[in-house]
Amino acid sequence: MDPIAVEVEGVGHVGYHVPTLVLGRGAIAQLTYTGDDADAPEIKKLIDAVAGNEDDFDNWTALITKVSELEGGVTRNSSPAAIDIFRAANDLFLTKFPRLYVYWAKYANVEFSIGGTETAEMVWERAVSAVPANPELWAQYCQFKETTCHNVPVTRELYERGAAIVGLDFWSDKFWDPYLDFEKRFGNASTVTRLQARISALWLYAYRRYYDAFVQTAIHSRDLDELLSPVELAENQRIVMSKYEALPEPTDIELDREMRAQISRYYAELGHKCHLEVTKRWSFEEKIKRQWFEVSEVPEEELVNWRKYLQFEEIEGDFKRIVYLYERCLTICASYDEFWLRYARWMTAMGKEEDVRNIYRTACTIYVPIGRPTVRLNWARFEESVGNLDTARDIHLSILEALPTNIETMVSLAGQLRRDQGIAAAVSWLERCKSTVSHGDAGRLIAEQARIHWQGAGDVEAARQVFKKNRLSFCNSAAFAINYLRFEMKQPRNNEAHDHIREVHDLLREMGALPVHLLKYLSHEYMEYLLDCGGKDAMKEYIELDKQVNGPYSVQTGLKRKVAEDGDVQTTDRRLVASNGHPGVEVNEAEFRRGVDPYARYYTEQGQDPANQGLI
Amino acid sequence: MDPIAVEVEGVGHVGYHVPTLVLGRGAIAQLTYTGDDADAPEIKKLIDAVAGNEDDFDNWTALITKVSELEGGVTRNSSPAAIDIFRAANDLFLTKFPRLYVYWAKYANVEFSIGGTETAEMVWERAVSAVPANPELWAQYCQFKETTCHNVPVTRELYERGAAIVGLDFWSDKFWDPYLDFEKRFGNASTVTRLQARISALWLYAYRRYYDAFVQTAIHSRDLDELLSPVELAENQRIVMSKYEALPEPTDIELDREMRAQISRYYAELGHKCHLEVTKRWSFEEKIKRQWFEVSEVPEEELVNWRKYLQFEEIEGDFKRIVYLYERCLTICASYDEFWLRYARWMTAMGKEEDVRNIYRTACTIYVPIGRPTVRLNWARFEESVGNLDTARDIHLSILEALPTNIETMVSLAGQLRRDQGIAAAVSWLERCKSTVSHGDAGRLIAEQARIHWQGAGDVEAARQVFKKNRLSFCNSAAFAINYLRFEMKQPRNNEAHDHIREVHDLLREMGALPVHLLKYLSHEYMEYLLDCGGKDAMKEYIELDKQVNGPYSVQTGLKRKVAEDGDVQTTDRRLVASNGHPGVEVNEAEFRRGVDPYARYYTEQGQDPANQGLI
Repeated sequence: MDPIAVEVEGVGHVGYHVPTLVLGRGAIAQLTYTGDDADAPEIKKLIDAVAGNEDDFDNWTALITKVSELEGGVTRNSSPAAIDIFRAANDLFLTKFPRLYVYWAKYANVEFSIGGTETAEMVWERAVSAVPANPELWAQYCQFKETTCHNVPVTRELYERGAAIVGLDFWSDKFWDPYLDFEKRFGNASTVTRLQARISALWLYAYRRYYDAFVQTAIHSRDLDELLSPVELAENQRIVMSKYEALPEPTDIELDREMRAQISRYYAELGHKCHLEVTKRWSFEEKIKRQWFEVSEVPEEELVNWRKYLQFEEIEGDFKRIVYLYERCLTICASYDEFWLRYARWMTAMGKEEDVRNIYRTACTIYVPIGRPTVRLNWARFEESVGNLDTARDIHLSILEALPTNIETMVSLAGQLRRDQGIAAAVSWLERCKSTVSHGDAGRLIAEQARIHWQGAGDVEAARQVFKKNRLSFCNSAAFAINYLRFEMKQPRNNEAHDHIREVHDLLREMGALPVHLLKYLSHEYMEYLLDCGGKDAMKEYIELDKQVNGPYSVQTGLKRKVAEDGDVQTTDRRLVASNGHPGVEVNEAEFRRGVDPYARYYTEQGQDPANQGLI
Repeated sequence: MDPIAVEVEGVGHVGYHVPTLVLGRGAIAQLTYTGDDADAPEIKKLIDAVAGNEDDFDNWTALITKVSELEGGVTRNSSPAAIDIFRAANDLFLTKFPRLYVYWAKYANVEFSIGGTETAEMVWERAVSAVPANPELWAQYCQFKETTCHNVPVTRELYERGAAIVGLDFWSDKFWDPYLDFEKRFGNASTVTRLQARISALWLYAYRRYYDAFVQTAIHSRDLDELLSPVELAENQRIVMSKYEALPEPTDIELDREMRAQISRYYAELGHKCHLEVTKRWSFEEKIKRQWFEVSEVPEEELVNWRKYLQFEEIEGDFKRIVYLYERCLTICASYDEFWLRYARWMTAMGKEEDVRNIYRTACTIYVPIGRPTVRLNWARFEESVGNLDTARDIHLSILEALPTNIETMVSLAGQLRRDQGIAAAVSWLERCKSTVSHGDAGRLIAEQARIHWQGAGDVEAARQVFKKNRLSFCNSAAFAINYLRFEMKQPRNNEAHDHIREVHDLLREMGALPVHLLKYLSHEYMEYLLDCGGKDAMKEYIELDKQVNGPYSVQTGLKRKVAEDGDVQTTDRRLVASNGHPGVEVNEAEFRRGVDPYARYYTEQGQDPANQGLI
């Protein structure tokens, strides 16, 4: 595909869009309260506050509270205006902060009193998909179902959906208790026993409670097939029967007694295992103070604990548990790139491409602020690695839609274009980016173009021309300057090469408008070069530079040329004489007496911070 | 000259020797007290203490005090043993700390009571050459002369020698007062007046005292030619006479009155100038709390003040004053490279080669500890820059005599040999150094050899062979590893080049014994390369590495291979199972209950610091 085509396609319609956590004034402005009652002005004020700073959590909660209380609490009898603003505000709020499960529940409950079961259920579904790893939320949803739907199998099905997701949660007693109550109320002794049996084997904080209840009540009273799964049952029967090989057939009573004894032994082992596993996890669980998502930062010690906990489960090696722990961690640490990246990397290692994609998509479409492109760029590289070049490109472009001047992204896309379509495409893409960024950043992009010619195609001359062409207009761009000098210094050593380097170095010292400390830094790199690669006379040049660069200002002739309009030392001194009375500083007797350091101004004139004289 | 020759010459006799501040046990051991009195054992103890830690100032002063007090105070009547140890100890002490002028004075005074005028005078001479910029020391020396030598012109000559050196000192009233007293006692009214006139024009802290004394007493009583130098006199006469052009010839009395009036005006101006200049310097002088050399560090704020003060005088631009201020600064800050380097750089700018050499020589032969080779290396480069290649080489070799394993110096000399005699000489020099340094440093030197082949001669293949030849034995040397990888990454991009890089990178990850954090760092550089220079499939490799390098430990297969003896992931897991009971860590129920983090050991096993889990 030729570069022009890229340009068109690149900038044209973006096929795959990556939304961001930034709603933007536009979206918020669409919130309007059409009611003309006394509340109108206040709501207007609250909306403006949110629009003013959409990241301020308090503005949002104020608005949400207000719109729920409209007309003495929004219900099906409220005015359409009230109902509309209530729904719109909650939708927007929970788009911005999807992990706030408490607000989802509130929303769903009010929605029930407005639109009834169907619309409420839709909110509950949105809730559990936004905050899947939360036993409490699932419990509430299921209880809602229990009260609104009188079809037991259907309700049980929802409990089972929840069980499959949060059943492993260390704190899922919050979920299992309601489920058990449900079975006790609507199921029968058998379903209850079977459920108890299931829970007793789980590694829950509250495992002992379920275990004891089950062992004490069920084991000696309920039918055997309720106590064990068919497989377990068969296995235990085998063990019991083996005892009778040498003995006469046991009576049914004997057999039943033996079986129940065996089953209690079997559960005793499960219980011990449970105890061990729970204890292992307890040392991590007890350190988790923040249980649900909050807008504020997660304390460092809790982040550390999550890292260790994840490492622990990863080594334990149970896929389902690891995935669930990541989900739980990311419910609380949703805005930390670190955990999304770790999750994606771990999943990559599991070789599950589609799961990796889902992790990246969730991270990027909902949680990670666009302001930090790292995760998105990693996603793009992942897609490229599996051959989805268009997706990769579109991810780049969508970052640039939100951050039109993000250099990192521009350069990253240039890299993809180069790998995929070659030099020309990459260079012309960067050429187009140049117009949209600051002068300094443009210098960075030019340097990247040159680098691509050089390292991408091994075409040193082309690279040099790119630098040469822009040297005068961009030698005051730090990125341009550094890369230009380094480029020349990296060429194979010979006299011509050295001339090139010297030329660039002189240009930067004498014409550039770079900050003094940067110039010093660059000259030091060049001095290194003289030591490492310089020829017979290199030390002459070295010592001259050592004087100019490291010597006291009074002898930094190169710099003085730099500050002079016409590049002549005399001019600088003339200027200093003119403004100061002598080539140093203005001398003011009175100031001296007052103890004023008259050199402050002088240092400042030389681009040196008087405060830091100690460091110069 | 062929490399063999270098080897011989290089290692053989060193023509020009740079001594160091380290006396060494040998030198100190030569201190012996041959007296067999009660003091012998104590002196022995004191000497051993000094030999034990020659940098401990208190050990020295204890010894010096003891040897001066021998036999009730050493005099010409003391035993030879006492006199010998006294002299030997002081000589050694003042070789180690030459700037301690007070001890020089003490030494000279006792020496006077031992050997009399001649030997004492030799000590005084050594004193003023070790601490030239010290008015007090000069004053004491001159006063000694005054009392011992009764030839006025000879004594005056010494005062003049001192005046030429410390006369400009802001605090030189300490010197001028004795000089004036001397003239008052042994000179005559005329010599006194002339001296007063001279001092009155100086910018001294005490300028007003001299000025008033002179103006009030002399101007209206003494002969005119005593008040002014011939030139000044003529100039002032011209001014006075010019008034009489239109008038009748003045009488001698009139003329004398006019002249004295004119002279007071003239001195009034000088006085004003004096006042201004002293005020300018006062803001720096008042910040100088430490007036003389002490063994302890100079407080940072005083270093800052010296930097500013020097910058001030440099801009004022009076060569003599600048030089004197540097000398004064370096009397106090004698062990700060910074000021020696600054002085040398400034002097270089003045174009005075011999003075620069003297600064470096003084710095290196007396003051700057050999432990910090920077100044010496700069000196070597300076000598090379003016063509004194042998001196430059000998400076390097003499550093290596004191610091036989100093890599920086070895590499620096290699650079000189390369510039002067070419690749072969440099490489074989480094080859010889290799045998004298640690394994890790040897890796650094090999890398330098390769770099010289590559950047020095543009011979990439030769460089690669150097790395290849040593890859297995040195891939655990950080310096070797970093340079090897970077060398390959800096070659023009093509598939072959990429293979080379991948090969090195794999080698380092799987066979090297580099610390985990360094490996990570190197892999990140390689990942950068994949983004910048990688081909169509680069992202496959990138994502795989991203997983292995940045992913959680559980999926860092590369690393696991590394920790395995036979480079097989399974082995590591087997080992972990063997030692831990499962591929993770040892699980100890009791420990868990006690809240011990059982992962600490596991993290350590993986070369990760448990304390820093937060950072991994």
